[in-house]
Amino acid sequence: MAEQLGEFDLIERIRRRLGAQADVVLGIGDDAAIVTPLPDRQLVVGTDTLVKGVHYPVETAAADVGWKALAVNLSDLAAMAARPRWVTLALTRPEADAAWLDDFLDGFLALAVAHGVALVGGDTTRGPEGITVTAFGSVPADQALRRDAARLGDDLWVTGTLGDAALALQHWRETGRIENDMLAARLNRPTPRVAFGLALRGIAHAAIDVSDGLLADAGHIARASSLGIELQADALPMSDDLAALPSLARQGLQLAGGDDYELCFSAPVAKASQVQSAAEACDVRVTRIGRVVDSAGIRVLGPGGQVLSLSEQGYRHFAS
Amino acid sequence: MAEQLGEFDLIERIRRRLGAQADVVLGIGDDAAIVTPLPDRQLVVGTDTLVKGVHYPVETAAADVGWKALAVNLSDLAAMAARPRWVTLALTRPEADAAWLDDFLDGFLALAVAHGVALVGGDTTRGPEGITVTAFGSVPADQALRRDAARLGDDLWVTGTLGDAALALQHWRETGRIENDMLAARLNRPTPRVAFGLALRGIAHAAIDVSDGLLADAGHIARASSLGIELQADALPMSDDLAALPSLARQGLQLAGGDDYELCFSAPVAKASQVQSAAEACDVRVTRIGRVVDSAGIRVLGPGGQVLSLSEQGYRHFAS
Repeated sequence: MAEQLGEFDLIERIRRRLGAQADVVLGIGDDAAIVTPLPDRQLVVGTDTLVKGVHYPVETAAADVGWKALAVNLSDLAAMAARPRWVTLALTRPEADAAWLDDFLDGFLALAVAHGVALVGGDTTRGPEGITVTAFGSVPADQALRRDAARLGDDLWVTGTLGDAALALQHWRETGRIENDMLAARLNRPTPRVAFGLALRGIAHAAIDVSDGLLADAGHIARASSLGIELQADALPMSDDLAALPSLARQGLQLAGGDDYELCFSAPVAKASQVQSAAEACDVRVTRIGRVVDSAGIRVLGPGGQVLSLSEQGYRHFAS
Repeated sequence: MAEQLGEFDLIERIRRRLGAQADVVLGIGDDAAIVTPLPDRQLVVGTDTLVKGVHYPVETAAADVGWKALAVNLSDLAAMAARPRWVTLALTRPEADAAWLDDFLDGFLALAVAHGVALVGGDTTRGPEGITVTAFGSVPADQALRRDAARLGDDLWVTGTLGDAALALQHWRETGRIENDMLAARLNRPTPRVAFGLALRGIAHAAIDVSDGLLADAGHIARASSLGIELQADALPMSDDLAALPSLARQGLQLAGGDDYELCFSAPVAKASQVQSAAEACDVRVTRIGRVVDSAGIRVLGPGGQVLSLSEQGYRHFAS
């Protein structure tokens, strides 16, 4: 029988695995944590919840759940060009078995350590499995990359490849498993583009992370900036696995699949080479996929410049 | 049929109800929020989750759920003597009906406005109902009230009355409802002792909010401070409704009932009159209920000084 933990044992089990960090005055174990913000920095705060069976397949390994719960939040900070510093973890589980928790922490803390992020507090509760992480980053005043800062004529770029996680999810839905390791990793272990987000300070105008699908997320930039976006369908980056699909299926995944956690950003045409250099320095693939235009909305252009029509609109929670 | 909202409509519906606050650079609607910490202040961060049916009865009105989700978090900041400034809200619901959301926000925002707290971001997801709030406060360096700062000989104090919320919950468990309005309010609309927590800066040594029951929470102070605590059973403050109960039932609720959200704190004997003055200034009842002693653990003393034995240990999540 699995070892069951009381709430306080559980918190202690988490605390034992954490290291010290100079800017953490008081970590896990009090009513709240105390941290020291950097002087002259703004504080960037994002929160994302993952619900079992909604945001990840119920069979997902605990370590992957831990990784992903943190990754999606670091991705939000990356899209703001913020440097991640602290996170809190609110973990709800039907039961608190030690083995699951240890595995969860393996994934969560591996990513936290890689980014120098301290887990400073949280809550553990009993209930249907869900994880809410709140992530805190810092950014110098006016250097954050906002959705509403795109400018007419900007190039639109995206990191990595699009649609892999959605393809993995499709495999899982059809067969109950994901045999392709690359695709499984893209779904379960997304890579938040933190270093590249920081490198885009002073280069990019607007940025967002692609979590709901490119169309939906590029749409947020367009709407917030009161502009439009034209995407070149043939320019959308793809993995070899996606390239093997028929083009309609492939483009559906690239445009409307969720869970990519790549950065989509706009930058002046004159800074294209700086974008490329930053990407090389960060070992991140980056692709120019379109441009910011005057007419509202998102248009997807085919190879001859014709406007393609798409019915899919990206993944929406609470879709009616 | 109830009006159903998409995620973006839902976020927009929340955003429309929020005012501006000078230290909020960018609120709801981007990947993350941007706020400006006060210079020379430490940042205090607490997170608490409420799960439907675990932390509140399933029949609880949406407005009460909203109030309580914020109140329990402000209570954590109060126990640190931190001034609340911003909160994020991660809301998970099986469906997103507009009427429920509006009622939830009525309760949540009424309390937020009362404390000058800005809702700056969050997440809305589909799943079993649960709410995670992360609250941010500020405190000058070294003025936070920590659990580990009690000193030998300190008086132990508590605000308000104890056991009312637990009695309300008992009524609900036995009859499916709570007819007594005062008790219902104590369960559903707890009052975070924010102003009094701030007033305790420089007076109290250690503080905690009473959420899991006095024995458990005073036990946290004792353990963290490597000391013990003696409680006077007859000194524990009670409402008229609790006073009407047989003493054993009453003391069980006062000592082990959860959800009080009162502050329990230790202060030097010489500062008793300052504690009283601060309480009067804040219009908060305060009662001296024991003292900090050398021998580890919590002892409850009867009227003749005899040690009472208690089996209840307060409410614990994941209790095995």
